[in-house]
Amino acid sequence: MTTQEKLSELRALMRNNNIDAYIIPMTDPHMSEYVADYWRAIKWFSGFSGSTANVVITQDYAGLWTDSRYFIQAEAQLKGSGIELVKLKIPHTPEYIDWLNKNLNANSVVGFDAKVFSVGIAQSMKTAFERKKISLSAEFNFISKIWKDRPEIPANEVFVHDVKYAGQSRTDKIAAVRGKMKEKNLDYHLLSSLDDIAWLFNLRGNDILYNPLFISFALVSENEALLFIDTKKLPEEVKTELIGDNISLKSYDEVYSELSNMKGSEAIYTQLSKTNYALYKAIPDSCSIVDDVNITTILKSMKNETEIANIRETMVKDGVAMVKFLYWLEQSVGTEKITEMSAGEKLLSFRKEQEGFFGESFGVISGYKGHAAMPHYSATKESDVELKPEGIYLVDSGGQFLGGTTDITRTVTLGKLTDEEKRDFTLALKGTIDLAMVVFPYGTKGVQLDVIARKALWDNRMNYGHGTGHGVGFFLNVHEGPQTIGTSGTGNMAAVLQPGMLTSDEPAFYREGKHGIRIENLILVVEDEENEFGKFLKFETVTLCPIDLKPVDVRMLTNDERNWLNNYHKEVYQKLFPNLDDVHKNWLKEKTIVI
Amino acid sequence: MTTQEKLSELRALMRNNNIDAYIIPMTDPHMSEYVADYWRAIKWFSGFSGSTANVVITQDYAGLWTDSRYFIQAEAQLKGSGIELVKLKIPHTPEYIDWLNKNLNANSVVGFDAKVFSVGIAQSMKTAFERKKISLSAEFNFISKIWKDRPEIPANEVFVHDVKYAGQSRTDKIAAVRGKMKEKNLDYHLLSSLDDIAWLFNLRGNDILYNPLFISFALVSENEALLFIDTKKLPEEVKTELIGDNISLKSYDEVYSELSNMKGSEAIYTQLSKTNYALYKAIPDSCSIVDDVNITTILKSMKNETEIANIRETMVKDGVAMVKFLYWLEQSVGTEKITEMSAGEKLLSFRKEQEGFFGESFGVISGYKGHAAMPHYSATKESDVELKPEGIYLVDSGGQFLGGTTDITRTVTLGKLTDEEKRDFTLALKGTIDLAMVVFPYGTKGVQLDVIARKALWDNRMNYGHGTGHGVGFFLNVHEGPQTIGTSGTGNMAAVLQPGMLTSDEPAFYREGKHGIRIENLILVVEDEENEFGKFLKFETVTLCPIDLKPVDVRMLTNDERNWLNNYHKEVYQKLFPNLDDVHKNWLKEKTIVI
Repeated sequence: MTTQEKLSELRALMRNNNIDAYIIPMTDPHMSEYVADYWRAIKWFSGFSGSTANVVITQDYAGLWTDSRYFIQAEAQLKGSGIELVKLKIPHTPEYIDWLNKNLNANSVVGFDAKVFSVGIAQSMKTAFERKKISLSAEFNFISKIWKDRPEIPANEVFVHDVKYAGQSRTDKIAAVRGKMKEKNLDYHLLSSLDDIAWLFNLRGNDILYNPLFISFALVSENEALLFIDTKKLPEEVKTELIGDNISLKSYDEVYSELSNMKGSEAIYTQLSKTNYALYKAIPDSCSIVDDVNITTILKSMKNETEIANIRETMVKDGVAMVKFLYWLEQSVGTEKITEMSAGEKLLSFRKEQEGFFGESFGVISGYKGHAAMPHYSATKESDVELKPEGIYLVDSGGQFLGGTTDITRTVTLGKLTDEEKRDFTLALKGTIDLAMVVFPYGTKGVQLDVIARKALWDNRMNYGHGTGHGVGFFLNVHEGPQTIGTSGTGNMAAVLQPGMLTSDEPAFYREGKHGIRIENLILVVEDEENEFGKFLKFETVTLCPIDLKPVDVRMLTNDERNWLNNYHKEVYQKLFPNLDDVHKNWLKEKTIVI
Repeated sequence: MTTQEKLSELRALMRNNNIDAYIIPMTDPHMSEYVADYWRAIKWFSGFSGSTANVVITQDYAGLWTDSRYFIQAEAQLKGSGIELVKLKIPHTPEYIDWLNKNLNANSVVGFDAKVFSVGIAQSMKTAFERKKISLSAEFNFISKIWKDRPEIPANEVFVHDVKYAGQSRTDKIAAVRGKMKEKNLDYHLLSSLDDIAWLFNLRGNDILYNPLFISFALVSENEALLFIDTKKLPEEVKTELIGDNISLKSYDEVYSELSNMKGSEAIYTQLSKTNYALYKAIPDSCSIVDDVNITTILKSMKNETEIANIRETMVKDGVAMVKFLYWLEQSVGTEKITEMSAGEKLLSFRKEQEGFFGESFGVISGYKGHAAMPHYSATKESDVELKPEGIYLVDSGGQFLGGTTDITRTVTLGKLTDEEKRDFTLALKGTIDLAMVVFPYGTKGVQLDVIARKALWDNRMNYGHGTGHGVGFFLNVHEGPQTIGTSGTGNMAAVLQPGMLTSDEPAFYREGKHGIRIENLILVVEDEENEFGKFLKFETVTLCPIDLKPVDVRMLTNDERNWLNNYHKEVYQKLFPNLDDVHKNWLKEKTIVI
């Protein structure tokens, strides 16, 4: 079936149902970062395989809105499809709403499937369309009607995440959520985001690429905790455990009827940006809805003591894998054939040796020379190049371990360096160190600290085009809110940094066609001192892996920066060497010498 | 008439009109920072004289919501009034909406006067009340019915702000607005905020305390520019000039009928947060409304070359007044009786000597010792104290000049200093200097730079509890958006810093009961260099007045900070000395020595 044929089938359905415009989004009912194939309707419909887009279709127009990362790819993939590429001015914004408002006649009807639209988007459309009396018709899942060989919703086995990792039983977590609900006078807390649900129930799954999650909804009240899930995913012992903890199991789709059957004026708490519009519409009008960041999201972001202890242990494992990889790379480059892709696979093999390793936390970025200057570069068979004993190589990777999620970038020199390369490297490194050293009062938001990581570059009229840090989950999503260090991103700019929050610290510098430099550690918010001027916080760097010293121009470091680097290397050495053989111990000692 | 009597009259009106709750806000139809007495209904009704509050009345409850600055004052002023103080958790938020939603029965009616409510607040109520089917009734101006001796709407004379100051004629400004309107496909631009209107028409007035503004509305289309104003405020020659420039004059209230008489589907651009709900409701449904920061606000914030030249000249005048004041203070303290209030008056008298001075740009903050530790301290007869040759004195003041608006804070030592005072002063000063020195790429928002001014304090576990900088108008409001340097305030956190924007730079440090330190200059965004990594910007410090060197601990300054301070003082000396007599020249020379 060609896109042209799909378009005419869809347009026929639109005509028969009096729909003037139909929207296909790239989301699932849980507003996930990675979506299962079942919900990749845009890829099936248009051929476009990028990670973000919206398609809008009318009887005489079809357009796909995506951001600048995908302009070239979308142009190629949409060629001849009858769908036009529309370039987003601001990434991740629903600019198609303006288009609809301008191009549709008054009293038109816009159709979509409520289950794959967030309430926020639906409400934005309502507000935008109000004056033109354009109405929404959210009950049309036309895609399922024309997608004959649509994949199944994933139904992989769910397993228990042991409390020895999680640090808090699911009954305690549910009690904590209920405590916060009581404070706010809430009757129900509806959860749609899969990592919130996995965290709350101490369960993990395998339905989503890179994220150990399972498709489900949850609803918590004072007396009940309901998990809506395809129960065939639950092994008997898991079922028994959950029921023993007073958790009621219902089928995945039952969440809609559960909500619509509510009586009275219950107050339902839910984060509307994570809630699909079908859930919202299912809630009777007599109930009130309180919209704010999910209680679980806040609780989950502040890692508990057991989680922190596990993270520290996991960082040793991840550090050992990284040391083995970096040693191997140094030994092998120039003597055996290594490419960007094979290096990434080798690193994965070292992580796999580590106990508790579950999988990659995202697709490895293994970039040599100019390739690494593209921050989101992913080597393909076509682009893959061989590493040689020259130039700069960047590897950004991470693992899902039972005891935590890792994310680390190291940039290493494979041969002789130019002064420009040294200067670029040192300025980016100053950013990583300066953010790691900052002290800040309680109440500070990540957006305020972003400049700390950039100042050394800005002073030299240089910069990098992405955020400085994202929140990181605990054996959960590598991109986790609510906090972020930067001006945009997956996190919430308004979120205050709290003790126990884990965030990446990844200043960078890219010189197009030449090299990309990024030094990324994970940093944990910890308490500093409290006095009459406030309660102060600081960061503890938890990632353990040497930073290449060859490209560091020591004269460019302040005394504080130099001390930080020496202390960091001392700690890396002390924590990793008990887990290394003599060859790696010696190598590490050399790599962590005092400068 | 007692508040109790006013309450019962109001409640009778509410009963007769089936209104379950009535809201009295502290705004005017223009969403001004300072409002004329005519709109100070809360003061008249409740006795509360603070600058921010909302009163909500039902048949069995009356509450006044205000923020922590006013808790003590409100408690005292509301005593026995029958109105309860409700303490805001977050300043400047409409927390009373939650209260109404919780306490009113379903299907209740909330009444208010649409003219003194922003569209934003009305829409927030609509959204909040939707599920409980609480409706809004915006046509009830009960206050006018019971306020018999209500003051008149101010009607002071309006005058022309000469293009030699403004740098751009009103016809050019209107053409520039029309150009932007055309880009955005807009038919009308509705302006309610008084400084936008004053800027657009190069007119000034005297209706509002500290702000040279006049009560009016404006509406600009491709062919028309309408000014809605009580025309008796316009001298004949001003009227002639305006009519000659193709500006149509209409009466103040005619704006509502002008809007409601619109036909067709015009696109009307207006900043809803600055637009009152009566204007919004007057616009026919067939028209579309585009909500964004007023075009004039953006254009106005980027000072043109003439304005910048005038600002530089005005800074010389303001600097001369400050030098005379600081010299007088140093000579007189301990020999003649000076109090906080008399010092403030003396400073005003020096400003009045300067050509082009129009008035104060805000109420002077003249604080000695512990008084200055209250950032918004305003000396009263009761609190006024005498200055002695000891301790630290802070003066924050500003002037409205035809050639610009000034705002400066200097903290001066009147006697011997402790090490703690020196350290506190130097850390705050490092903040002022560090922000003045920063280089940043185009696209940076003020909220990102705030930390630069705080880092020296944070590193020492110290902080200050207010923003670092606010936008400043040109012979307009001393607090002007859209930019701000901080996490809240009058400006818009999302506004990008653009060349020509004028902002304050006022890091501070307060030690309760002991002293307050703040060093405030105005800084102008200017272009730095452009390269492959971006277009970089920096600040030029335009305020000209010596910074007290006695409390500076030079060892705590970096070389860059020390050089900045010496260069700044060199510039202050060079620019001010041609305008000073020998006595002041000698004094200034001594105050600006190289350290």
